[in-house]
Amino acid sequence: MSYQSKKLINDPNDVVTECIEGMVETYPHLQYLDGFPNIKVVLRADVLGSTYDKVAVISGGGSGHEPACAGYVGEGMLTAAVCGDVFTSPNVDSILAAIRAVTGPNGCLLIVTNYTGDRLNFGLAAEEAKSEGYNVEMVIVGDDCALPPPRGVAGRRGLAGTILVHKIAGAAAAAGLSLADVAAEAKHASEIVGTMGVAFSVCTLPGHVTSDRLGPGLMELGLGIHGEPGAAVADLQPADIVVSHMLKQILSTETKYVPITRGNRVVLMINGLGATPVMELMIAAGKAVPQLQLEHGLAVDRVYTGSFMTSLDMAGFSISIMRADRVILQRLDAPTKAPFWPVSVEGDRPPAKIPIPIRPSRMETNEELFAKPQELSEQGCILEAAIRAAANEIINLREKLNEWDSKVGDGDCGSTMFRGATAILEDMEKCYPLNDAAQTVKEIGTSIRRVMGGTSGILYEILCKAAYASLKVCPVITSKEWANALEAAIAAVIKYGGAVSGYRTMLDALIPASSILKERLEAGVDPESAFVISAEAAWHGAESTKNMQAQAGRSSYVSAEMLALVPDPGAMAVATWYKAAAFAVKDVAIKHLKDEPS
Amino acid sequence: MSYQSKKLINDPNDVVTECIEGMVETYPHLQYLDGFPNIKVVLRADVLGSTYDKVAVISGGGSGHEPACAGYVGEGMLTAAVCGDVFTSPNVDSILAAIRAVTGPNGCLLIVTNYTGDRLNFGLAAEEAKSEGYNVEMVIVGDDCALPPPRGVAGRRGLAGTILVHKIAGAAAAAGLSLADVAAEAKHASEIVGTMGVAFSVCTLPGHVTSDRLGPGLMELGLGIHGEPGAAVADLQPADIVVSHMLKQILSTETKYVPITRGNRVVLMINGLGATPVMELMIAAGKAVPQLQLEHGLAVDRVYTGSFMTSLDMAGFSISIMRADRVILQRLDAPTKAPFWPVSVEGDRPPAKIPIPIRPSRMETNEELFAKPQELSEQGCILEAAIRAAANEIINLREKLNEWDSKVGDGDCGSTMFRGATAILEDMEKCYPLNDAAQTVKEIGTSIRRVMGGTSGILYEILCKAAYASLKVCPVITSKEWANALEAAIAAVIKYGGAVSGYRTMLDALIPASSILKERLEAGVDPESAFVISAEAAWHGAESTKNMQAQAGRSSYVSAEMLALVPDPGAMAVATWYKAAAFAVKDVAIKHLKDEPS
Repeated sequence: MSYQSKKLINDPNDVVTECIEGMVETYPHLQYLDGFPNIKVVLRADVLGSTYDKVAVISGGGSGHEPACAGYVGEGMLTAAVCGDVFTSPNVDSILAAIRAVTGPNGCLLIVTNYTGDRLNFGLAAEEAKSEGYNVEMVIVGDDCALPPPRGVAGRRGLAGTILVHKIAGAAAAAGLSLADVAAEAKHASEIVGTMGVAFSVCTLPGHVTSDRLGPGLMELGLGIHGEPGAAVADLQPADIVVSHMLKQILSTETKYVPITRGNRVVLMINGLGATPVMELMIAAGKAVPQLQLEHGLAVDRVYTGSFMTSLDMAGFSISIMRADRVILQRLDAPTKAPFWPVSVEGDRPPAKIPIPIRPSRMETNEELFAKPQELSEQGCILEAAIRAAANEIINLREKLNEWDSKVGDGDCGSTMFRGATAILEDMEKCYPLNDAAQTVKEIGTSIRRVMGGTSGILYEILCKAAYASLKVCPVITSKEWANALEAAIAAVIKYGGAVSGYRTMLDALIPASSILKERLEAGVDPESAFVISAEAAWHGAESTKNMQAQAGRSSYVSAEMLALVPDPGAMAVATWYKAAAFAVKDVAIKHLKDEPS
Repeated sequence: MSYQSKKLINDPNDVVTECIEGMVETYPHLQYLDGFPNIKVVLRADVLGSTYDKVAVISGGGSGHEPACAGYVGEGMLTAAVCGDVFTSPNVDSILAAIRAVTGPNGCLLIVTNYTGDRLNFGLAAEEAKSEGYNVEMVIVGDDCALPPPRGVAGRRGLAGTILVHKIAGAAAAAGLSLADVAAEAKHASEIVGTMGVAFSVCTLPGHVTSDRLGPGLMELGLGIHGEPGAAVADLQPADIVVSHMLKQILSTETKYVPITRGNRVVLMINGLGATPVMELMIAAGKAVPQLQLEHGLAVDRVYTGSFMTSLDMAGFSISIMRADRVILQRLDAPTKAPFWPVSVEGDRPPAKIPIPIRPSRMETNEELFAKPQELSEQGCILEAAIRAAANEIINLREKLNEWDSKVGDGDCGSTMFRGATAILEDMEKCYPLNDAAQTVKEIGTSIRRVMGGTSGILYEILCKAAYASLKVCPVITSKEWANALEAAIAAVIKYGGAVSGYRTMLDALIPASSILKERLEAGVDPESAFVISAEAAWHGAESTKNMQAQAGRSSYVSAEMLALVPDPGAMAVATWYKAAAFAVKDVAIKHLKDEPS
């Protein structure tokens, strides 16, 4: 069964020219020769052949391997790229046009992947250019390590290792070397690199249907980059094993394709084939490096991970290994404007991981150091009473909250709040430093984090954390500081939670409570009364949620008719614990008042 | 029908930590905190929080969006990235660890994509960090333009536009701005960017099966980056139309999501979602720019094309548009070590295309200027006779060559050679400058290029081109120069074609002919006799191909038994024309000898 692949293209015949147009729109240092559709040449906008004082470095081949080769055009790498149709060698006229456009008195080097069509077309263009008086050298790259020797006239295929040769030649040319020297470096580079590919899917030519040659659960080992079948088909394996197999094949001492032996330094390229995401390439890179080091005894100087030479929309990747020395690294590290050459891969390698930093002040935040005080201050007594009353009311409200929530949410509001309240009561006995209001509020947050979970848990934790931050900077905590802390805490919930008043959330109880509390205190009402009055505002606000459309959470999918039957359980929970705390504070305050001699 | 997706991974639970290990192997300026699996933080290796003298810029979120966000860590962009599990917000502890690790006295900015989990976890961590004494600001990015307002508490989703905000904030921090100013620039940037995505496939979570939610021929418009369904499903359309629709949606004057109006300057981001190759992204970029200019009246200052914020292995892309001004461009253009920020996109934009360069010397190579001379020199007469005899013998041999080729190749060798020979005879009458041997050889190549095609056509053209290059530098052409030209021509065919002696190709006739010719001439044999003797060597060499294993072309798939029955047709063709030419030369030379008074 074959099927139509989905591609983001227009006319399949225009994919290469439209791709070039997009490249040139993206990279202002690139231009193309005005010869579409026959001549598809991308070149540096700042190079004029007749006056160019460096060796021009030209590569190319069939298209469908993007970003290769046009994406490597730029100062320090390729001077021009000649693009054929998809998987088709460019014609002689276009290669010749590229040579004429960028080659100056210092000549040009053609870097050609080893395919018969490319060899012949570039070769013919080279001969023609020579007959026109240009100095032209050609280096053919065949880095494939998948197939056993001998390969006859075809030789080893040119694969992603070619990109490394491009970079080395481009850097050598940029350094001002002669054509002979640039060609010699490129040839040397081509002889010390090996590549092997693995495919998880076949690629689809634009306008064609996709072959199902490669069935489910299978991969092809040792493929080329033109959709041709691989050397072998195998069951899909974990990345570890696939990478290990490929490294062994490339470094095989039987084929001796690459002159790399134990103790050598190497650079590594992990190359995606078009449809393999960065995550998977990075996983392969992370496995290849220690394997090269530990199993093959090689030092890995550079790692290049990305999609450098692709096969249209093929899923899969290739690994290339090149022997490295000082000159090779110097060329690879040299700066370039080529947009797809990977950056930030050079430099000294520090340890991969560093310890997690400890908290800035261990003393202040280590829960172990807290304990419930032996003697409670008056404030401590009030705080304890408020917390206990609030938690107990929430515990009592469990079933009612669940019942409301089952109508407008997922039915677990009561259970979640119950967990939090229970933990608070437990932890209060163990470790709340009740004489320190700020720290106690913070510890409430810690209890909540431990057991509540979900959005409500994190919102309550934010509430506590922000209130703590507000309280802890106050030398003395009076009702005014508590009101400010509540206000700051609500602001944090609004900021991070995204809801505002009227969204049918806990804020519809909190916001009226906070504003009435502040207003009453500023009007001179005594703190205990102001707290109780504001609790009524919270209750009223929570009740009013019945008339609100939900804008957050699961309730937003519930009909207005259903919503009108029940208040928002989150808001009702707030109103409940807030009211319980307020009355508890009032009771304790009255009791203290009575106990004290007047 | 769902199916198992093929991924290059090991244990699905380890994908994020293994990806981070690969990133850090690839980029030596990156480190991670030693807290796997709970704490997954990638940070700059050169920043130590306690002494860092710039504002730290931290981002993060669920993984599966690689290279975001870890790939944007580097001087000039993010200071640290906090990675959650796949599509899962990172926990508070890991965000806090990142803040503590990189935040110095100047504080830190958290840039958060607008998802409830990210808002809450980053928010809570921010509050906790503040309570520890850190200066922390947070900017939430919601750039999605796909869904109609109002979006309630959820707001607009954070998509690829976030990457632009990262860059602007990172550059502002690197420039030494205060936390308030960096946060203000980030907030401003988040308010002037809009994004919309289109998917061609659904993504597959590691270890899960792939949904077939999106059927063949369909695409999803306006999706998020977590595999959630898009706002609408539509028939797949050409890239032009998809891009046009997305641009209109982003710039809609109904939603007014982005404050961009006709006459504004903008930057454009074309973002692949994981499995869409560079070719297709470039096609979209090439279409989006002129549409923005011509249909929306916008000047496009920068184009960023690549896979910046992905959804695992999803095929598809998003478009982001940000209003640009001097400061925005300055921030976007500022240098960074972040490995995945696109390079070489800034700078003046020259014309996209330039004329194809003309040949360096028009005079020398324009065929129109040649004509058969009215009067032939003695050399011209000999050349004409040789060409005519050679071509006629090839014409006579057509059926025999086809017959041989049908046994060992695709059966068209005779027809191909016939086309070449016929064209040569025609063109010789019209335009071969027979008194100029070098140019005549070149013109033979031109005739061949015009009609022959295929590998043999291009090899013959290389043969002619290289012989021409050898001959044209000789002031006088004697038999010695012809022998040198033949040698050079054979070297070119070996170099570009890749075959050598014994590969059962035309070389098995050419090489013996050339070496015997050279040897006889050096031994003092007269040219005509040396030519004839070398023709016998060619013939012998061609006959001997029966005993050779094929190493090139289709013959390499044919059994040795079959190959032993026929000689290589290409070698026989060479032997045939070479022998005919040799005898013709001898005949004419003898005739001239007779005609001339001795």
